[in-house]
Amino acid sequence: MRAEMDSEAPIGVFDSGVGGISVLEHLTKSFPSENFVYLGDTARLPYGTKSSQTVRMYAEQCLEHLHLRGVKSFVIACNTASSAYLEKAYKTKPVYNMIECGSLEIIQKTSGRKTLLLATKTTIQSGAYSNCLKNLNSSVELILLAAPLFVPLVEEGVLSGPLVEEVLRHTLKPVENLIAQKQLDVCLLACTHFPFLREEIEKYLGSGIEVTDSSSQLEKLLRQDKKNHIQSLRRSSSAGSLQFILTDSSDHFQKFILQRWPDRKIDFTHI
Amino acid sequence: MRAEMDSEAPIGVFDSGVGGISVLEHLTKSFPSENFVYLGDTARLPYGTKSSQTVRMYAEQCLEHLHLRGVKSFVIACNTASSAYLEKAYKTKPVYNMIECGSLEIIQKTSGRKTLLLATKTTIQSGAYSNCLKNLNSSVELILLAAPLFVPLVEEGVLSGPLVEEVLRHTLKPVENLIAQKQLDVCLLACTHFPFLREEIEKYLGSGIEVTDSSSQLEKLLRQDKKNHIQSLRRSSSAGSLQFILTDSSDHFQKFILQRWPDRKIDFTHI
Repeated sequence: MRAEMDSEAPIGVFDSGVGGISVLEHLTKSFPSENFVYLGDTARLPYGTKSSQTVRMYAEQCLEHLHLRGVKSFVIACNTASSAYLEKAYKTKPVYNMIECGSLEIIQKTSGRKTLLLATKTTIQSGAYSNCLKNLNSSVELILLAAPLFVPLVEEGVLSGPLVEEVLRHTLKPVENLIAQKQLDVCLLACTHFPFLREEIEKYLGSGIEVTDSSSQLEKLLRQDKKNHIQSLRRSSSAGSLQFILTDSSDHFQKFILQRWPDRKIDFTHI
Repeated sequence: MRAEMDSEAPIGVFDSGVGGISVLEHLTKSFPSENFVYLGDTARLPYGTKSSQTVRMYAEQCLEHLHLRGVKSFVIACNTASSAYLEKAYKTKPVYNMIECGSLEIIQKTSGRKTLLLATKTTIQSGAYSNCLKNLNSSVELILLAAPLFVPLVEEGVLSGPLVEEVLRHTLKPVENLIAQKQLDVCLLACTHFPFLREEIEKYLGSGIEVTDSSSQLEKLLRQDKKNHIQSLRRSSSAGSLQFILTDSSDHFQKFILQRWPDRKIDFTHI
């Protein structure tokens, strides 16, 4: 009875804003019958320019809120929040974070040249990726680059065009020689907002650099955990429910969601 | 005795981030012997993309914090927060807001053509400027334009160069015909972050459009109130104290401040 209740319970996903939607899109495709609750902390976004201490406090508040809503596990769909909350559980329920997934992705994709890691300032300053790769016994050479203007672009829905190109030129200037000399093999989008700019980033970096993110590894971890009985996935042929909770009202956010899941029944709540 | 204590008490100024510093710079030049306490709500910046209801809550928390520190009056050095908190007092102490100052500036500067008002989304959606101008019996024709990417640029310290130019082109696209046809006479920078981009905005708009902000009118209002004995200004020949309180730690912010007041003793606190 308990196991059944657990499997029906939703998976709780959170991010500061729309970034985590890139992760949720992957998860709803991979686990179509699962129920999801997504918390967007829009009242305090962005996280990536704030201190680790402040972001950790926000992350714990988001985890607690989702816990009170009875989720069976948590996905921190935000690299910055992940870098500030690295524990693998919250109140005995499993927590999946982006840092581990991103590190596994780098290890799998690199062919031995340098990996470019694009992230927020706070993620980079945390050192979380370097530490995680070290713990995984990897000696991949990371080039860490903060891209603080990508999040505002995505939150504003500016995903292509000359302005995106100029922001890319400005941001990638410190690595322009590495790009020109083909010294990079992988570019990890280590902020969940960035996959919305993927096509433009790919175009800018040119061929020979694989642009990737953490979602596939997250999917793998969730499937492994199912096998390990750490958590049960829902067994149903019907589509799961999708619920969105925002800490600040946002028409923009609602439009963004409705465009992405036009066929799903979606519930919005503002707290 | 009471009057003396009041005059020695600092003036409390707040904004979400560095924007209000453009106002504080003007105030410290105009009233060099006054003591100021500046609260930067960096843990929750920016305000301009959040709902009026949420921003009002943040504004009241900032006012309360400054009140507890014994300020004699408040300056809401943020148009968005001003548009969400229009009352002229908080706990019997006078509150000066940017909306009234900006409206007076428009009335003084316009020669009858259209005024371009650049602001955050939340300020524009609030309708605060249109209402204030109506209350002041003005029939100035306002062109309201949201500039949501200006704040992230300023917070990142990107104040000139090709990226700023591209953001201006993107933002001002809806009024490019009005600019070309010289149908505008004044451009009010109705967000306290924007004066840091003033030179680039002036260059972009070209001659014939006066780019201005609210600081001069704020100075006038403070001087008038002194005359009216609503509040007393400090009478001292020595330079006043400058105290900065941030809700999140920020090296970037501290550097920004120290560059601006190299000769003043400055106190930073993180709450």
